[in-house]
Amino acid sequence: MKSSERARAVELKPYLAARAKEVDAALDQFLPKKTAAPGTIHAAMRYTVFAGGKRLRPILALAAAEACGGKAEDAIAPACAVEVLHTYSLVHDDLPCMDDDDLRRGRPTCHKVYGEGMAVLTGDALLTEAFYILAQTPASDRYGVRHYVAELALTGGSRHLIGGQVLDLEGEGQKPSKARLLKIHEAKTAALLTTSLRLGAMTANATPKQLEALTTFGHALGLAFQVIDDILDVTQSTEVLGKTAGKDAEAAKTTYPALFGLAKSRKEAARLTKEALDALKPFGKKGERLAEIAHYLLDREY
Amino acid sequence: MKSSERARAVELKPYLAARAKEVDAALDQFLPKKTAAPGTIHAAMRYTVFAGGKRLRPILALAAAEACGGKAEDAIAPACAVEVLHTYSLVHDDLPCMDDDDLRRGRPTCHKVYGEGMAVLTGDALLTEAFYILAQTPASDRYGVRHYVAELALTGGSRHLIGGQVLDLEGEGQKPSKARLLKIHEAKTAALLTTSLRLGAMTANATPKQLEALTTFGHALGLAFQVIDDILDVTQSTEVLGKTAGKDAEAAKTTYPALFGLAKSRKEAARLTKEALDALKPFGKKGERLAEIAHYLLDREY
Repeated sequence: MKSSERARAVELKPYLAARAKEVDAALDQFLPKKTAAPGTIHAAMRYTVFAGGKRLRPILALAAAEACGGKAEDAIAPACAVEVLHTYSLVHDDLPCMDDDDLRRGRPTCHKVYGEGMAVLTGDALLTEAFYILAQTPASDRYGVRHYVAELALTGGSRHLIGGQVLDLEGEGQKPSKARLLKIHEAKTAALLTTSLRLGAMTANATPKQLEALTTFGHALGLAFQVIDDILDVTQSTEVLGKTAGKDAEAAKTTYPALFGLAKSRKEAARLTKEALDALKPFGKKGERLAEIAHYLLDREY
Repeated sequence: MKSSERARAVELKPYLAARAKEVDAALDQFLPKKTAAPGTIHAAMRYTVFAGGKRLRPILALAAAEACGGKAEDAIAPACAVEVLHTYSLVHDDLPCMDDDDLRRGRPTCHKVYGEGMAVLTGDALLTEAFYILAQTPASDRYGVRHYVAELALTGGSRHLIGGQVLDLEGEGQKPSKARLLKIHEAKTAALLTTSLRLGAMTANATPKQLEALTTFGHALGLAFQVIDDILDVTQSTEVLGKTAGKDAEAAKTTYPALFGLAKSRKEAARLTKEALDALKPFGKKGERLAEIAHYLLDREY
């Protein structure tokens, strides 16, 4: 990263913090109160949602709405919906019968605090709630709730997000391959980042061409993001990550650094980020915020 | 049950069988093919959905559409969506960390065949798929996908269906009470039966008054259904039920027969069925099919 770009990434921090605060306030409004019956599950839902996530997906949704000339506030429901769906997937991925992780975002995982049965139900409830929130999105001229729900359900379902976790689960101990790794990254990460962007753009009445450009951007950004995630798993401490470091190697998971080494992995992340940035050209000045976010992600340390 | 009613219940069997076949054909169309990648999860989804369920919820959706003067075919998407959502809830309820059951609809449960991690993912995928299917429902004059999704997500979520499972999970070993039992039955059974009816009716452009009548009908029918389910758990064999009999008593779960005895439980089921039938009066002749289904459910043996 050039020093001018690094400076820009630092400048982005207040923007990201402000946006995350907006998202948190909206999530607090959308989610059932802690006092709603039965209390345990609503406490567990809030415990996992308000665990200090970066809110990357919702921020992308809001920024995509603005890149298409719309207002961020029109995209707040889908922004929260993707974050709640993302959180459910973490709760279930962390279960003992899945990745079996005790730590997430620096805190004990849901099943560690509430027990395994309740963690399954908490994930289920968050997944269902994501669609309840999404149904509150205002329609634009081109798109309605029908399109929003189809978009999120297709991405969140067995063909993409869950399918990726299946491949991940089945792949442990198998011979690593680049093709399989790419499939998992596409399904587990790139698909939901792309859908976050698309949903935000749809509330801004995006043209099919704009949606296509954002799909290219999201795909490359998602792959870059995941390569960096794999790198950080190797190079960073559990303390900095807020989740158990070195977990991938221990589980003999296929990762970019394991396949290609750190230097080549860093190069690949940079190449993918450039690919992402190129896709933003049609948005001109309006796409700058998304470009800054892409730069920022390449340079993150956790 | 009078002998004339019993005769009517017998006559209903071919209707129910024909409807179940229609629903199965539609489910086969809606669900991803077994060959879609990744294969394991799509096979597991189909294994659980095509395990020979009675398709009660979809049949209620179709019959409710007709009771409101609409066409059954317009309600086929929500009919399938509620069945797929119902199936997910069974897959997760059967997990070792939940009710820990090995047998469902006469076959080994999903986690017995595919393993625990895959069963969690299969349930997740079915829940997500339910909304994908629901998004394909045609809009009526009064209702659109926004209303369908809000209805199903609210009922399927932490406030009702999942909330009921939470109470169930927390209640094991606790002192049984009628109030708690009623809450669990309302949340776990009555709510989804009611939503099945309401979704079907909404595709037929039901008036708010019609929706209200169906809500009363579904609530009473759902409670009657669950009382009978509890009775059958005591009186029938595992072979007839297709699921492990005597399970409730073994888990020291609160049930109607445990609280009130068999005779009083049967009386309560009959009283609730009458309450359900009374709610159908505004539909006149058009409500007869729903009445027949209510009679049939009271007299079922599995």
